[in-house]
Amino acid sequence: MKVHNFSAGPCILPQSVLEQASQAVLNFNNDNLSLIEISHRSKPFLAVMDKARSLALELLGLENKGYQALYLQGGASMQFLMVAYNLLEKKAAYLDTGTWANNAIKEAKNFGQIVEVASSKSNKYNYIPKKYTIPSDINYFHVTSNNTIFGTQIKKFPTTDIPLVCDMSSDIFSRKLDFSKFDLIYAGAQKNMGPAGTTLVIVKEEILGKISRVIPSILDYKVHISKESMYNTPPVFPVYVSMLTLEWLKDLGGIPFIETVNNQKAALIYDEIDRNPLFVGFAAKEDRSVMNATFNLVDKTLKSNFETLLKEAGISGLNGHRSVGGYRASMYNALPLYSVQALVDVMQELELRG
Amino acid sequence: MKVHNFSAGPCILPQSVLEQASQAVLNFNNDNLSLIEISHRSKPFLAVMDKARSLALELLGLENKGYQALYLQGGASMQFLMVAYNLLEKKAAYLDTGTWANNAIKEAKNFGQIVEVASSKSNKYNYIPKKYTIPSDINYFHVTSNNTIFGTQIKKFPTTDIPLVCDMSSDIFSRKLDFSKFDLIYAGAQKNMGPAGTTLVIVKEEILGKISRVIPSILDYKVHISKESMYNTPPVFPVYVSMLTLEWLKDLGGIPFIETVNNQKAALIYDEIDRNPLFVGFAAKEDRSVMNATFNLVDKTLKSNFETLLKEAGISGLNGHRSVGGYRASMYNALPLYSVQALVDVMQELELRG
Repeated sequence: MKVHNFSAGPCILPQSVLEQASQAVLNFNNDNLSLIEISHRSKPFLAVMDKARSLALELLGLENKGYQALYLQGGASMQFLMVAYNLLEKKAAYLDTGTWANNAIKEAKNFGQIVEVASSKSNKYNYIPKKYTIPSDINYFHVTSNNTIFGTQIKKFPTTDIPLVCDMSSDIFSRKLDFSKFDLIYAGAQKNMGPAGTTLVIVKEEILGKISRVIPSILDYKVHISKESMYNTPPVFPVYVSMLTLEWLKDLGGIPFIETVNNQKAALIYDEIDRNPLFVGFAAKEDRSVMNATFNLVDKTLKSNFETLLKEAGISGLNGHRSVGGYRASMYNALPLYSVQALVDVMQELELRG
Repeated sequence: MKVHNFSAGPCILPQSVLEQASQAVLNFNNDNLSLIEISHRSKPFLAVMDKARSLALELLGLENKGYQALYLQGGASMQFLMVAYNLLEKKAAYLDTGTWANNAIKEAKNFGQIVEVASSKSNKYNYIPKKYTIPSDINYFHVTSNNTIFGTQIKKFPTTDIPLVCDMSSDIFSRKLDFSKFDLIYAGAQKNMGPAGTTLVIVKEEILGKISRVIPSILDYKVHISKESMYNTPPVFPVYVSMLTLEWLKDLGGIPFIETVNNQKAALIYDEIDRNPLFVGFAAKEDRSVMNATFNLVDKTLKSNFETLLKEAGISGLNGHRSVGGYRASMYNALPLYSVQALVDVMQELELRG
């Protein structure tokens, strides 16, 4: 039985992608060589990198608009550093909406003055602050679109002349947005677009090269752009699986299609959380994430019964992050609607049985 | 027909490793979940990371000697930066033996004064400089053990009280050495120990924490050590395949066994280069790499004939790096002796046929 995989990331990937990836590890491109034992400068792999880069821009509607797509290493945590290294001359502003936003702020503080325009920390990050002013004398404004741990998501992004930088690690490619509002987007692949080990960076070229700091080559976006994301050996397998995942998304109908499915999944779980007297949601309703639904039992003595039912139904990865507790249903692009239905069925069964 | 894969890296991996890796992408640990869709904090993956780290120390004979093994991202190029960031207070010395040593020097120059103790650049890096003095007032001395592009290899490492840092990307786990001579060893996985996408760092803890510079978390060896190489989501698949490759090596008999095979492979190709009047070696004889044999045709008009014979024999990846030209036979741990024999057979056939 295939498991209902609600893991928060690394997370479920499309079955067809897993099958192609598994095959490529044995024999890629019918060359009788594994994907992971060929040169990254070989034509078959250059075609993979090229396609992965162009698909990302195409799906986001950012082709021919001055953006470049890069597949780098080091995760979003490396981007916390690279963003500051490349863009922060004197002062930048951050919106503190959770653990990862906070880590991004910490790393940037080594490079300039950081203004926290607002924070929901005192409310355990259960909402998205909306009333804040973006200073006019800053190099960029940084936001985190979706907060995996807390289950909150920014629904409306600010319109500003200041370069807008967004960590979209946990909701990129999940919903329609005017992506051209952003000047730099980054996302660890391991939620909506592939396995752990590569990070997509989408950057508007015109914002680069404006600071006086010497940037080490390996951290310099301009260097990576000039080398077409092949400054050094790229993470071959993660890039390939990301390409397959983006192909899968494109074939389904791209972001407009998946957004509809994602909204259905989110409606299903949140309706049940609100209806079922045994459960209570964690995040403020208007800020609820379509990707990660955080909730808990009202009566904690039902914990053991609930978890037995989850196990019987083949539901995996539902534990909440230790800083929130309770449960978290992560419903990334590849999670089918029927997996959410299976979870809702268990919640209803618990209501019946107690 | 399986190809004879002489690729310089990413390169050939053991067939049994490829088969296990392919299977794990479909169903890992018999949990009906793919390796790449489970949490990196799950017990099955924590066991992988733990084993990959301990196997590396065990195979190098560095257990319980104050060393830590880390699997990081960003390749050796990221280590060029991290070494300087973590260890360079004022001054360091480097031995310039090739393109990668040179890149390491460039990156370090942003952080302090760099002394090049010697360089073979004026001789197209075809030998290893041996007469040099290591300054006494430096933070560390950096060497590159094997120069993939030029086919040279350090046979004897200096004995010094200065912390010794070594880029072993292209010959780690290939030969017996007193690894405790080194204070920091790093190696991109994609030659002798796995696929592209992770970098092994072996570091003696006592050399860390001695500089005044603020180190960004993601670049700080101490942070990675304190988080047991899980500061952020690690590159799951590359780490797993590295673990499998180290298990394979251990089962064969470890470094002592593979060194014997590697020496046989190297003797076979170099004897043919020296015997066959059609070929000439590139590197100085005493510095010839056991991993990468660089050579060329004496008479370039035979190029087309030679390459036709190579193709017919299923020999792949033999093109030399553009900065050297000619041919390069990369003979990493997983390349079987019979593949080198197949290459020697082609060289002899060319001699017969012309």
